[in-house]
Parts: sequence; C-alpha cells; structure tokens
Amino acid sequence: MNSIGTNLRLTIFGESHGELVGALLDGLPAGMAVDAAAVQHEVDMRRPAPLIGTARQEADIVSIKGGIREGKLTGTPVLLALNNTDVRSASYEELKRIPRPGHADFTSFVKYKGHADHRGGGQFSGRLTAPMVGAGALARQYLSGKGTRIAAHVVRIHDVLDGRKYPFDEIESGRFSNEIRCVDGQAAESMKERILEARKKGDSVGGIIECIATGIPAGLGEPFFDTVEGELSKMVFSIPAVKGIEFGSGFGSAHLYGSENNDPFMVAKEQPWGVATSTNNAGGINGGITNGMDVVFRVAVKPTSSISRPQMSVDLDTLEERELIVKGRHDPCIVPRAVIVVEAACAIVMADLYLRSGLK
Amino acid sequence: MNSIGTNLRLTIFGESHGELVGALLDGLPAGMAVDAAAVQHEVDMRRPAPLIGTARQEADIVSIKGGIREGKLTGTPVLLALNNTDVRSASYEELKRIPRPGHADFTSFVKYKGHADHRGGGQFSGRLTAPMVGAGALARQYLSGKGTRIAAHVVRIHDVLDGRKYPFDEIESGRFSNEIRCVDGQAAESMKERILEARKKGDSVGGIIECIATGIPAGLGEPFFDTVEGELSKMVFSIPAVKGIEFGSGFGSAHLYGSENNDPFMVAKEQPWGVATSTNNAGGINGGITNGMDVVFRVAVKPTSSISRPQMSVDLDTLEERELIVKGRHDPCIVPRAVIVVEAACAIVMADLYLRSGLK
Amino acid sequence: MNSIGTNLRLTIFGESHGELVGALLDGLPAGMAVDAAAVQHEVDMRRPAPLIGTARQEADIVSIKGGIREGKLTGTPVLLALNNTDVRSASYEELKRIPRPGHADFTSFVKYKGHADHRGGGQFSGRLTAPMVGAGALARQYLSGKGTRIAAHVVRIHDVLDGRKYPFDEIESGRFSNEIRCVDGQAAESMKERILEARKKGDSVGGIIECIATGIPAGLGEPFFDTVEGELSKMVFSIPAVKGIEFGSGFGSAHLYGSENNDPFMVAKEQPWGVATSTNNAGGINGGITNGMDVVFRVAVKPTSSISRPQMSVDLDTLEERELIVKGRHDPCIVPRAVIVVEAACAIVMADLYLRSGLK
Amino acid sequence: MNSIGTNLRLTIFGESHGELVGALLDGLPAGMAVDAAAVQHEVDMRRPAPLIGTARQEADIVSIKGGIREGKLTGTPVLLALNNTDVRSASYEELKRIPRPGHADFTSFVKYKGHADHRGGGQFSGRLTAPMVGAGALARQYLSGKGTRIAAHVVRIHDVLDGRKYPFDEIESGRFSNEIRCVDGQAAESMKERILEARKKGDSVGGIIECIATGIPAGLGEPFFDTVEGELSKMVFSIPAVKGIEFGSGFGSAHLYGSENNDPFMVAKEQPWGVATSTNNAGGINGGITNGMDVVFRVAVKPTSSISRPQMSVDLDTLEERELIVKGRHDPCIVPRAVIVVEAACAIVMADLYLRSGLK
Repeated sequence: MNSIGTNLRLTIFGESHGELVGALLDGLPAGMAVDAAAVQHEVDMRRPAPLIGTARQEADIVSIKGGIREGKLTGTPVLLALNNTDVRSASYEELKRIPRPGHADFTSFVKYKGHADHRGGGQFSGRLTAPMVGAGALARQYLSGKGTRIAAHVVRIHDVLDGRKYPFDEIESGRFSNEIRCVDGQAAESMKERILEARKKGDSVGGIIECIATGIPAGLGEPFFDTVEGELSKMVFSIPAVKGIEFGSGFGSAHLYGSENNDPFMVAKEQPWGVATSTNNAGGINGGITNGMDVVFRVAVKPTSSISRPQMSVDLDTLEERELIVKGRHDPCIVPRAVIVVEAACAIVMADLYLRSGLK
Repeated sequence: MNSIGTNLRLTIFGESHGELVGALLDGLPAGMAVDAAAVQHEVDMRRPAPLIGTARQEADIVSIKGGIREGKLTGTPVLLALNNTDVRSASYEELKRIPRPGHADFTSFVKYKGHADHRGGGQFSGRLTAPMVGAGALARQYLSGKGTRIAAHVVRIHDVLDGRKYPFDEIESGRFSNEIRCVDGQAAESMKERILEARKKGDSVGGIIECIATGIPAGLGEPFFDTVEGELSKMVFSIPAVKGIEFGSGFGSAHLYGSENNDPFMVAKEQPWGVATSTNNAGGINGGITNGMDVVFRVAVKPTSSISRPQMSVDLDTLEERELIVKGRHDPCIVPRAVIVVEAACAIVMADLYLRSGLK
Repeated sequence: MNSIGTNLRLTIFGESHGELVGALLDGLPAGMAVDAAAVQHEVDMRRPAPLIGTARQEADIVSIKGGIREGKLTGTPVLLALNNTDVRSASYEELKRIPRPGHADFTSFVKYKGHADHRGGGQFSGRLTAPMVGAGALARQYLSGKGTRIAAHVVRIHDVLDGRKYPFDEIESGRFSNEIRCVDGQAAESMKERILEARKKGDSVGGIIECIATGIPAGLGEPFFDTVEGELSKMVFSIPAVKGIEFGSGFGSAHLYGSENNDPFMVAKEQPWGVATSTNNAGGINGGITNGMDVVFRVAVKPTSSISRPQMSVDLDTLEERELIVKGRHDPCIVPRAVIVVEAACAIVMADLYLRSGLK
Repeated sequence: MNSIGTNLRLTIFGESHGELVGALLDGLPAGMAVDAAAVQHEVDMRRPAPLIGTARQEADIVSIKGGIREGKLTGTPVLLALNNTDVRSASYEELKRIPRPGHADFTSFVKYKGHADHRGGGQFSGRLTAPMVGAGALARQYLSGKGTRIAAHVVRIHDVLDGRKYPFDEIESGRFSNEIRCVDGQAAESMKERILEARKKGDSVGGIIECIATGIPAGLGEPFFDTVEGELSKMVFSIPAVKGIEFGSGFGSAHLYGSENNDPFMVAKEQPWGVATSTNNAGGINGGITNGMDVVFRVAVKPTSSISRPQMSVDLDTLEERELIVKGRHDPCIVPRAVIVVEAACAIVMADLYLRSGLK
C-alpha cells in the first residue's frame, strides 16, 4: 500500500517516466488556508543545482486539484499533481534485465514480476519525493498555525563535516543560503568540492542530514508502538537512499554513561508545563513521547547508486555476469536535494501526531 | 493503540507492577505446531544475569491461553500471559511527582494526565518486552518453517567494541555462550568489567546490538511506504532505550563512494533467482525490498536511565528543582538483555512481511 | 484480524470450548472510573433464560486484568477474561467432518484447513459475544459521561410483532422486565410461546431487534467511507446470526415518496445547534454523519442454525450425503440474548466515533 | 479518511462542483491487463437517462493516469480522474445556510464547520460514485480472471415489485436492457411510470436493488470482525441514499423456522470442495465466510432527498423556520443509476477479500 499516516494520510502515486507523479493528502482540517506559492517554493527547493545535481530539468509545477476552494481546504483529500516533462527513457532499456548495483532494479523485478515501469526507476525513483515535498509543505502550513517549525541541514558530505551546534533560527535561515544546504558556507565549499570530484570520477558521495522540529508540545506519540521515533523512521526510510536514523545523542549514547546522557529537568516558566531539560540528549523524546524540547534526528544518506563507472552485474535473462555502465542523468550526490524531503517527511509525521493527539 | 503489524498483529498489554503483562498475537496460520518449551526458553534468555542485571527476580512463566489446541494453533489470536510476582512498589511513590531524568515519567504524566500506573514505569517499562519475546518466539517458529533464522549479538558496550565480522552460524551458536551476549569471549569479559564499574559508581552504560536475519526470500517489503527498514524501525524503536538504527553500511555509507558502497551482482546458482551480491552494504534491502541477502541492522541502546547517582529534577506539584536519588532495582546495562528482544522484534516484523507477501 | 475500531479498538480471542474467551479493549481514556459490577451485570443480561435458552450454564464471571488500577483506567489496553467452565465437547466429534446446515462448520473447515477448534463452534461461537458485552459495558460507561444512552429491544419473534413506537425511556426501563427483552409484556408472552413451540418441535425461530442511541452529538462519522451506518454494520454483522440491518425508515423508505421520507428541520432551542428534525426517518444520520437525533437501527436475526430435527448434510471425508441430527445444547431462539450484544456493538462503535471526532 | 479496503484500497477525492472527481485504487497486481474501454463503458452505465434522471449532463470521460503502462498495471496506485464540466453552482447559494431536509447539508455544516464546498453536495454528492464505478470496473476485470462475475438489478421502485428469482445469466444479460435496470420489461414500464408521476409532482421515489456475485470461492472473509457481510455493508453504506442491507433471506429469515432457513448440504462434484447447498438462504455466507454459493444481497435506496416541493427548514444564521424550495437539477429516482454503483461496491470488496485470502 502506498499510503502512510493515521489521521493525516499521504498516498503517493505515479512513476518517474510516466505521465505524472502526485500525492493525495487526507486529513488536514476543513477551512485551513493554503499558501500555494509556498508549496511551489518548497518543491522548487528540491530541484537540482547545476553540476552537483542531475541534468534532468523538470519544471516541477505543482497543481492542487480537489480538496480546495477559494484558497481554503474543504475537508476532502488534497490532490497534488506534477507532470513529467523532461523524460528520456531510451537509456533505461538495458536495465530492464541488467540490474544496477545498489539500485532497486532487481528487487523491483522480483516484486512486480517484471511489470513495473522500470524507466527512471519507476515507482522507486527519487522523483516520487517531489509530491512528498508538496504534501510536506501543506503539513508545515498546518503546523505553523500551532507554532511548530521544522528545519534540516547538511552536516556531512563524505569526509567533510559541519559539526557545530547551531541555534534553530540560524539553521532555519541559513540552510538555503547555498546549494549544499549547509549552514556553514566554508564547509559548504569543501562539500561541493567533494561532490564535483566524485562527479569527475563518475562516482558519487553520501552524507548526513540533521533535522530539527521546534515548538512541539509535550505529549505527542505513544509508548507501544506508535513512538515518535518509530513514526518518523517509517516515513524517513521511504526516502530513497536513507540507510540510518538516530535521535538525540543516538549512536553516540552507546559511549556515554547514564549520568552523562540523562537530561536533567529544570524549572522553565515559559514552557507549558513549567519544566524543561537542561540538555537534549533524548532528542525531545522520552518513552516514545515528545517532552516539549526540540525533536532532533540525523539521517544517513548513502552515495547515489547510479554511477557511470563500470560495475559488475548479471543479465537476468541469460544469468551471465556482465559489466554495466549506467547511462541516464543522475545526481553525483543527492544529499542537498534530500534536505527539503527530510523536512517534508518530518512535517507530515508531526502533523499526523498532532492531529492524533486531539490537542487544539 | 498498543498494536503493530498488518497480517501478523501484536498487541501488548499490562503494566510493570500490575497483575500481569501479556501479548496477543493474531495472524499465524491455523495448524502451526507450537513448541511451548522453546517459547519459555526465549523468554528465559531475557532474564537478568546476576550483578549485571536488575535484582528484581521474576519467574517469567509464560502461559499460552487461547488460540491453541493440542499444541497447534487454531487460527484465533494467541494470548500470552506472564504474571508479575516480584513487585516492590513503595520505591516509586516519590517519582509520581518528581520525574526521573531520561525516563518516561514526565511524558507519561503529560500523556495520561497523571492516571498511568507509574509504578515500575507502568506501561513504559522494559517488562513489557517479556511478552514481546514470547510473541517473537512464535514468529520465529513460523519463520523457521520457511528457512529463515535470526540472531543478534552485542557488538559494543560503552567503549568496548567487538568489530569482527562473523559468519551467521557463529553468531547464532555463540551469542548465548556468555551473559553479555557477545560472541567474542574476551571482549565479553571487558564489557562485563565496564558494566560492573558503572554499577559500582551508581551509573549505567549503553551499547550497540547487531541483528541478522538469514534465509530471507527476495521480494519482501514495498517501496512507499512499507519498506523493510521502516517496518523494522517502527518495531525496534518501541523497545525502551533504543535511540538509533542503521541498515547495512548505515551511517558508515555517508563516508563511502558509490563505487565502494554499491553491491555488485554475481551469478549464484544456489539462490532462488540465480543471483547474489558479492558484498552486502545494502543490508539485504534495495528500494525497501529484500534482495535475498542477509538482512543486517544495528541498534543503538542508550545507557539505562535509572541510575542511583543524584540527579536534578523538578517537583511537578510545587515546580521547584529537587535533587533526586532513584531507588528501586535497576539494570546498570540492559544491552545484553535486549539482544533477545531485538531478535523478537525482527522475527515478528519478518513474519508479518512474509505473511503479507503471499509467498508460500 | 480479530480486531475492530480505530480510536477504540476491540480484539476478541478464545474459543467456545477452550480455556477462556476474552477481549482486549484499547483506547478508553486514562483516568476513567470503571464500575466493575455494572460490567458484570451487563454480561449477566446475556445469560440464557430457562427453557428459551441453552442448557449450557456458564458462570460468566468477568475478570478485568491489566489496564486498570484502583478502579480507574491507566491508558493501556483493558483485558477482559471469562473462563469456560461448563464444557461438554463429546457431542461435537461428529461435526468435524459432517457440517451442520446454516452453521460455520463448513466454512471454518475451508478457512482454517481443519485446524480450527470445532468444539462448540470454536471461534465462530456466540460465546465470543460474552466478552464483547463486557467491552460494550465499558464503552457504555464512557458514553454515559457524554450523556449518551443506548437501549435495544425485541420487536419481532417469528410472526409476533411489537410494532409500537416507544419513547426511549420506556425502552430503556422496560426491556429487561421480561426474559424476552420485549417492552410489551403481552407480546413477550406470545413470543415466548412461539419459542417454546419451536423448541418442542426441535426447531428454532428468529426475530428482529431495534436499537436506539440517544444523546448523540451531531457531527460523528464521515461521508466516504466511515459512515455511521457502515461502522455500525461492520460491527453488528460480526454478531453470529445477524443477516440484515436497516437505519431509520430503512427498507420501508423504498415505498415512500421523498416528501414523506425527508425529515423537515425545525427550530429546537434545547439542541446544541438550535435545530432538530420533526420526524426521524433518517435514523439520526444524514450523509453518513449523525445529525443529533436518535440513532435508530433494526437488525434481523435468523433462526438458530443448531436444531435437533434431522437435516441433510455431507460427510466431508467420504463425500457422501448423510442425515445429521445435531446434538449439544442450543438456544431455540437467540434473539432475546442478542439484545444486550447489539447494545454492546452499538456502544463500542459510538464510543469509537466519539473518540475519533475529537469532541470533548 | 476517504479510504476503504485492506489489500485493495480505494480512495475517493474531489467535489461535485470542483475541478474534478477521482479515485486512487491501490493493490491490483502488476501486470494485469486493463480494458480501458470497458472502464468507460461501466461509467457510462451510471449516466442519467432522459426524464428519469437529472438534467445535468456530464461527459464523464475517465482518464487513467499513473499506475499503468502500455495497457498493463505497473503495481503503483491507479489514478482515475473525471473532470466536472456541466456545473451550475448559482442554485446552491441559498442552501449554504438553509439545509435541505433529508440531505447532508446540515451535517456537512456541523462536521466541516461551514468550510465544505457545499455546491452540488460537495463531497457528499452522488457524483463521487462516478470514480467509484471506474474503480469497480478495474476490480471486476481482476475478478473476471478468477471466474467471478457480478450483476445487480432493480427489484422494486416504490410499490412496483419484480419479485421473480432469475438465474444469474438472465440478470447479467437483462439488467441493462432498459433504463430502469429491471430484468422484467413490463415491471420496468410500471416502474418508469411511478418515477415520472413522482417527477411531475416535484417528488421522488426509492427502491430496492439486488446484487449477486457468482463464481466466488469458499473461504473469503473472517468470523470476527472482517465478515463478508460487514465488509460489503461498510462499502455499500457509503453510497448516498442507501439505508438498509440484507443478505440471503435477510429480514425475511426472522419469520422462518430454522428448519426452513438452514441450507442443507448436498454432494456437488463440480464444486471445488465437492459440496454445495440445495438452497441459498445464507446468501452464500456462513459465519462471515463465503461458502462457495452465490453471494446475494439486497440494498434499500431511499427516495432522492432533493425534491422541488416546498419543505420546512431552518435558516442556520437566524435560527428561524423557513419554507424551502430546492432548485438545481436532480434525479426523481436514483435507483436505476445506483445499480452499477452497487456492482462496483461489490466488485471492490470481493476483489479485496480475494487479495487478502492469498488464494491464487
């Protein structure tokens, strides 16, 4: 089933090289005002930058059909549609029987018995994240009315790290100041170099994205089994190329003592419950439930699978090994483009948790 | 909702210091033979070892009621129940209003408006993982009939690492050879020392568990949104203290080139589809779908929140800061006990994916 | 899956002649006070009356385990368990291969491949409605805090009809004044005669139950697809022997003109929205959503399938036709006992719709 | 949530007078060939006939976008879209505050707080059944590959009854031979007269539709709670104007003895299990599970709510009673048009049950 969510349900449809890709978003409240330009803006933030992104140039015009009247939601599902325009499918013919290493060609073949639209990755394509970003923009507009804001940024590309702890505002305002989506302009330069080096070699690189949601009320989520971590993970792992997620101190907590990792409580008059924690190793979540601090998680994005260097594969028809050179147009690094996708994923899940909580 | 799963659905109930804890498991096929002794054995593997575990000694006798007749499943939900016997609730009175740092006391208070059974962590307690292990044992028996086996082991406690790559058989046979659940006996000794040191200081330590499922057919899972990674994550994050998960090369893939991280295909006559990959950086999953290789993931377990060293907290009644000394009986490290829980989580999810796939 | 409901989820387990039958009810709010005696009382209302019910005498003692502490709900699922005590399974041996006409023996055999516990109907038994009534009692207690009350009554047994329109209070107070659950004492006498006549002939009779929920706020339910009618129907059809349901004027509306069937609106100051309808042919539901008037539906209950008169069947082993004489202890009419079950079904669904609506 | 189904999931979107109405259908197998002309044909069968239907003339051109390539399904959700073309919204302005009796105007106002698109009934409109029919056509094509066929027909309009029992083939071939969708041409004539009489008086009439699914394997459905009756009911009650449903002998079974209503088993070599029943009072369902006989149900359709005769209503702004004369274009009887909608509902549910069953 291509759906996710309980009180806010997202369904994704379409294929990379079909007529269109789109999303249906069900559950936002009737009467909510929609800023369509902001939706388009967020989708634009996902478009590839020259050189560091793919050469495929999609206009990515989002049209909102159904579920809306005179700029306000009617309470029925919102349909977001993006036509595919810049499609060059010839390059994919060979891949139908010779699966690309690291890609879903083989598993798609097994799952859909050869009937999936393999062109451009079909339903496995990163292109499906475009409507997800559109839906995320709507979720963000909903959350914005609750005082919740979300921002993600690149903290690592290959061996270049931006390890600084920024205040939320700085991430929010700085993340789109360069095409790498890294707050630190100098680090961004080095990251860009790594990407261009990889590109030159016909190779690709990965990285790490950090995402923060601020202004989250305490009490969202449940202990068994609808934990905030679990709900975010399930959504985030549907973003192609994500291979890991951690919350708060995450994998680092394995090296800490409890006395270091526990977040002491302190009086905080400005908080709804009058308490806060003085550190945030929990990433804003205790027992699967938000505690009112920022929700913080990091996502590992593997290097793009589609590289132009020769790789070994197998011809599924003849069962002979074959050297494969992947053609088509691909991103040497999708991490920068994935930043807005991770934000969208976070926004959709947090909005769903909000709607489930019954909080006004 | 305290339920998870689509075609195999697990529901957890009970509280740490209530009359009982239990699980209802719905969806295993009628006619499946149940080895009740093996179920009990797996639950026993979760019991605390002396010194490195809690002093609370629960008999943890699992009774299987309903859904079974003459050792075979009838097709109705299976009820697993474990009575709570060694309960000392007095130590928890204070925590009702002074939440323990790192624990769910505060979020439970917010979520359930003070009505949750706070004794022993109530429904947030690690004790709820006991029936989960029982349910996991049933799932494992189902998978065993499909040729699937699952084993997890400790690869890190605090700063002690067992970084070796073991063949599956060695993990499966070696993991329970010591109380640390670490395959390497020497590393286990060092890990135990770390735990005892922490215990002496009234502190706690965390670690990392690796879990492997072998004999998985290609084709389980879906791209959007029911990815194998997403389904496993959602389940695994409901295990208290888990704060991160990664698949295959995971966070490490962020440092690799695509040409290093991609798994080349090769001819493998013994595989159902005649192909395999020569490396397994994907952790057995491409595009959210199993590719027939071992499913491999690692889980970060934070140091136990309940420590006896003084910590700062806030009295929720008076909103004054208070030094808190946590009483009660707690594990200085729950990582070894969590090994069988991670296996159970994996088994339940893989069995669900199997049942959803329609594969015979 | 043996579960139903979205924000209030009921799971049923156990078998007629197994160790126990029970229910798990998840979603009632933490802190809700439970009147355990009232739960037991409602379950008692389902017990068979002498002569018109089965001779099987179950004590039907409900124990509430888990999810409750000191008489209040904790927020975890509530476990209701009833042990089976008066079991005589010998009479069922033959039915394993010679299915009873009108019963689920054959479809159970097909579905569970012969592995279901066929004794007493196993998981198909009306006995599973006992825990459903227990769960319904809890749902009713929840609704009672919202001002909602539910009452059902028998309006037909075979050819004896009680066609009068009663005010809700009269149904609520009168329905348990006799063992037939018919408000009109004289009609009840005639109905009882029909049942005893059928019993004498080794035969059975059916009937019709009407159920009314009053004090329902406008706005519960949805147009596509979670209509109030659809949600109630799905629950009600899981009660064994129910074969039809209609809302408001129901099948009768097929004979009416729109001008007769439409319910005119009128000013009603005492209603939350200031309006009411002067008739209630809609049964309190327009466009799948409650309109604030009483929700009214009628349920057709077929004559009990288990009769002692000789019937034709087929031996599934030899595929030869066989005359079958059903042994065991059975109700010549289950309609009176089903009254409290229909109320329970209604209460659980209305409570779920209430919890979904977000209304306080 | 505007979705229904488990392994075959239908989501409906759009509004009567918005840009479009549509459906997303998820779960049909990749590789299934689609006959797009047949989909269009079924949607055409829902269009209004002159005089007995509404004057609104929608072209109802279905376009299938996404989920399909070269006439075969790819395994992603299928998007069906129908543009709204013949929209005259002016007539609806008044209804925004003066709700039509029998219609969803008032409940829509309550539910969506005045934000729903009230024009033409918005998301409550019968127009939403157009994409449902398109989706039903796809489900039927799937079922057709399994040997399952579905046909519905009108058995009553107001006081005119066609009570004859027809063989399935006669219903299938005869139901579209006249605009009333009644197999008996003479009865159809009388029915048409009743409709035209009602129309002349500015009134409307209702009726009863019978639907039969043949070639259904034994074993679909479950006892608690996913009964075949429950699943069909939930879907069918989302069709606007449906107020009752009964299976097999249905409400009539309340008047029968068990010995009359039980269906005796007999040897039937041509059946997969070698047995059949000699009567079919169960409507093909025992214990919630199909028994291999035809699934038979009848649906009560109330007279159209929108009539032009003056009716009493209340102005929601001023809370004063008002005489209302409904304008706009409406069907004096929607029963004939609902026939194909009921078939679609049945097809979608049966296909879902089939896909859930794991039967090949």
